[in-house]
Amino acid sequence: MSTSTADLEQIVAAAVSAAPVWRTSGQATRAGWLRALADALDAHADELVPLADRETRLGETRLRGEVGRTSGQLRLFATVVEEGAYLELTIDDADPAAAPPRPELRRLLIGVGPVAVFSASNFPFAFSVCGGDTASALAAGNPVVVKAHSGHPELSRRTAEIAAAALEAAGAPAGSIALVEGREAGNALVQHPAVQAAGFTGSLSGGRALFDLATGRPDPIPFYGELGSVNPVVLTRGAVAARGAALAQGLAGSFTLGAGQFCTKPGVVFVPRGAGFEEALAAATTGIAGGPLLTDRITAAFPEGVGRLAADPGVEVIAHGAETADGARPLVVATDAAAVIARADVLLEEVFGPVTLLVRYDTDDDLHAALGAVPGSLTATLHAEDGDDVTATLELLQARAGRVLFAGWPTGVAVTWSQQHGGPWPATTSLHTSVGATAIRRFLRPVAYQDAPERLLPDVLRDAALARLPHRRNGILTVPLAS
Amino acid sequence: MSTSTADLEQIVAAAVSAAPVWRTSGQATRAGWLRALADALDAHADELVPLADRETRLGETRLRGEVGRTSGQLRLFATVVEEGAYLELTIDDADPAAAPPRPELRRLLIGVGPVAVFSASNFPFAFSVCGGDTASALAAGNPVVVKAHSGHPELSRRTAEIAAAALEAAGAPAGSIALVEGREAGNALVQHPAVQAAGFTGSLSGGRALFDLATGRPDPIPFYGELGSVNPVVLTRGAVAARGAALAQGLAGSFTLGAGQFCTKPGVVFVPRGAGFEEALAAATTGIAGGPLLTDRITAAFPEGVGRLAADPGVEVIAHGAETADGARPLVVATDAAAVIARADVLLEEVFGPVTLLVRYDTDDDLHAALGAVPGSLTATLHAEDGDDVTATLELLQARAGRVLFAGWPTGVAVTWSQQHGGPWPATTSLHTSVGATAIRRFLRPVAYQDAPERLLPDVLRDAALARLPHRRNGILTVPLAS
Repeated sequence: MSTSTADLEQIVAAAVSAAPVWRTSGQATRAGWLRALADALDAHADELVPLADRETRLGETRLRGEVGRTSGQLRLFATVVEEGAYLELTIDDADPAAAPPRPELRRLLIGVGPVAVFSASNFPFAFSVCGGDTASALAAGNPVVVKAHSGHPELSRRTAEIAAAALEAAGAPAGSIALVEGREAGNALVQHPAVQAAGFTGSLSGGRALFDLATGRPDPIPFYGELGSVNPVVLTRGAVAARGAALAQGLAGSFTLGAGQFCTKPGVVFVPRGAGFEEALAAATTGIAGGPLLTDRITAAFPEGVGRLAADPGVEVIAHGAETADGARPLVVATDAAAVIARADVLLEEVFGPVTLLVRYDTDDDLHAALGAVPGSLTATLHAEDGDDVTATLELLQARAGRVLFAGWPTGVAVTWSQQHGGPWPATTSLHTSVGATAIRRFLRPVAYQDAPERLLPDVLRDAALARLPHRRNGILTVPLAS
Repeated sequence: MSTSTADLEQIVAAAVSAAPVWRTSGQATRAGWLRALADALDAHADELVPLADRETRLGETRLRGEVGRTSGQLRLFATVVEEGAYLELTIDDADPAAAPPRPELRRLLIGVGPVAVFSASNFPFAFSVCGGDTASALAAGNPVVVKAHSGHPELSRRTAEIAAAALEAAGAPAGSIALVEGREAGNALVQHPAVQAAGFTGSLSGGRALFDLATGRPDPIPFYGELGSVNPVVLTRGAVAARGAALAQGLAGSFTLGAGQFCTKPGVVFVPRGAGFEEALAAATTGIAGGPLLTDRITAAFPEGVGRLAADPGVEVIAHGAETADGARPLVVATDAAAVIARADVLLEEVFGPVTLLVRYDTDDDLHAALGAVPGSLTATLHAEDGDDVTATLELLQARAGRVLFAGWPTGVAVTWSQQHGGPWPATTSLHTSVGATAIRRFLRPVAYQDAPERLLPDVLRDAALARLPHRRNGILTVPLAS
């Protein structure tokens, strides 16, 4: 089922009508709308989770957790809106004595207008109809038109219905959120003159195509895509010596989690040669079952990706996970630093599913040369001991990732004020995060009012509001005490 | 003279070497480098101003003022760096009791790496080698490679020499700032794999071409372009009745300032029909001389642009300024709202130089319909009286501009914390400003450190630094008192 051109026009027109209402909505009102949406998702979890499981096969436990993540995300953004620092209120008072005389300027961030959100396959709630892009776009004061992922159409439709009804019941305008379906409608959406920005989570090829459409418009719009990531991990010789078995357990759990279908899956792991880590990882992986993959396309792509790796003359298979009737079998393969340097385009392309590539290194020089070939990623992980000199390694890792971990594993992305989910291309297309509080900045634009009469200023820029909101005045940043 | 491929490679390689030094430079050190650059510009003003005047014909007074603006801009960014809020330090402490247990995350913004800056013709200092893009890119912790504007090559070379020497003398690394020349070198620069972002001020056609190169790369980079703006002005009937002559004086001064070569020149002015404003503006304009335009290309383009307007059947000439031997003659033309709606592509294209288009309206409905045809602009100005109902007009203006003025005229852009110099396409390509303190955000990217040992954290993320720097911890924004 694909959305017709006429329906798309009607949907976008409704979003255009809703846009000024969202943009000028007060903080308490908008936060209330976000919480009403969160409450509706939670209230419908018993209906939505089985629907999601039928379409994604991700299992009840994971999906129920994801509903909680999604409603929690909406509530975090409600708090962000209430707190108000995201408005970046900045005032410079007039200075008639300056040369030239300086006018009064009052600046804030406002919503850009209707936002297009492209859902992901692997998070049917948290990166889909009411996911992070939608939550941050709404929080910024914009209506949203979602392009449903073809992997979970029924869930998308039902979630959109629930969301639209919840927002309307809470007093938000018609057109606040709507769904379109089909590739053609998605392409038309990102090119629609009324759409002001787009968020996307998905494949490099799909994301690149939409990015090119967004930037190729007569009036280009920002396209915030999260596209692909191999998430390098480095284990030092010292770390393997001190806790090799625990690291192997951790890695085995992380690369097979959710059948290896997380965007933060550790896909390439640099290990000291001959330190026993391969054996430990093989032992840790053997008993782990994979699981069914999300869609037929992903199911077909997994053996292709694995085959591409296995066909490389420098790659050997180290371990298999447990075989199951229905599902991708976990796999560990290994190669040398030299092979990665020589054939990075083959060996360091993301493979979605439960496979990871070990890269053996002898010296730090080998390691650093191979890290130089790693593409931009969402995360980079370093497991080292206190005595290790990791300065150069860390420099290479942080140049390639938006989040650098020193313990644990990259799967699991906390939705917090400080999260950064983004990194150099192809991890993301922009210098902003797609998870966490500051994701809101993607859907805001600054406006400065010069010498405005107070009655014509947005409420939050008037002196009365400044008494309660974080702001900068004449260069001084101030956080009023909560009353 | 065009920079060779070999020279470009060498220049970019030096910037790559300098990048980690800039990125990890302490706040005091980096602020010192910016101030050293500012001091050097001021110290060489007597040499640079005549050089600039020979190449741009902007005159000593204007150019001397522009040097001051440029060094002042560098000093503002030194203050921004020292103050530290731009780092967006954000900490969430670990929460082992959370489900799932939450790691510690510490987030900051760091420099993106080498930045390309494309100079403008009309600000040989403030938007050129050491202008706003350079100042904000350096402040963000990045080396800069400047593409010289062909309109002032000698000045560009000398400024770059002075800047490089000043930075080196202050202890900054070699490769901190360098110059390339020629269109081919500029195109190669924005496509160079080591260049991480670009800033541009110039024409729509030139900017669009570079934008397409930047976004068309295998690894697209952000391109921050300021391209073109007609800067609409609306005069209400009430305002014209109350102070028509003063408004006419102000407009005449603004559209002819700098021979109409400011990006914020009021290019289209909506005036109530038959209220006497045209006569007042004609009287105010008659005595004003234009001046020589910046380059041969601009000199040739002005009569073309004026001719395009004058050739429109709905356009009539209202007034000329004073004729001079060497220079563009100021011109006021007028048309109707209906003509603008019918032929916006012809009538609302920016014409660089001392010309402005009056658009007569009868009713607010006429006005609003015509405003709907106005393209995105840097500024929008509304002159109204207290009793006027301007809600709908203001809504249309703020949708089209990044700065909305309620007094004065858009020429003159204060370099302050609150400035917004940007707007919907084609005013700029992004949701950031190119003037003012927050311009720094364009050249920064976030990195989050998860469970990092303190010794491996950037200095500013350690607890000792948080005691003196603005930061958010567990959701609470705090501004430590200056010690």
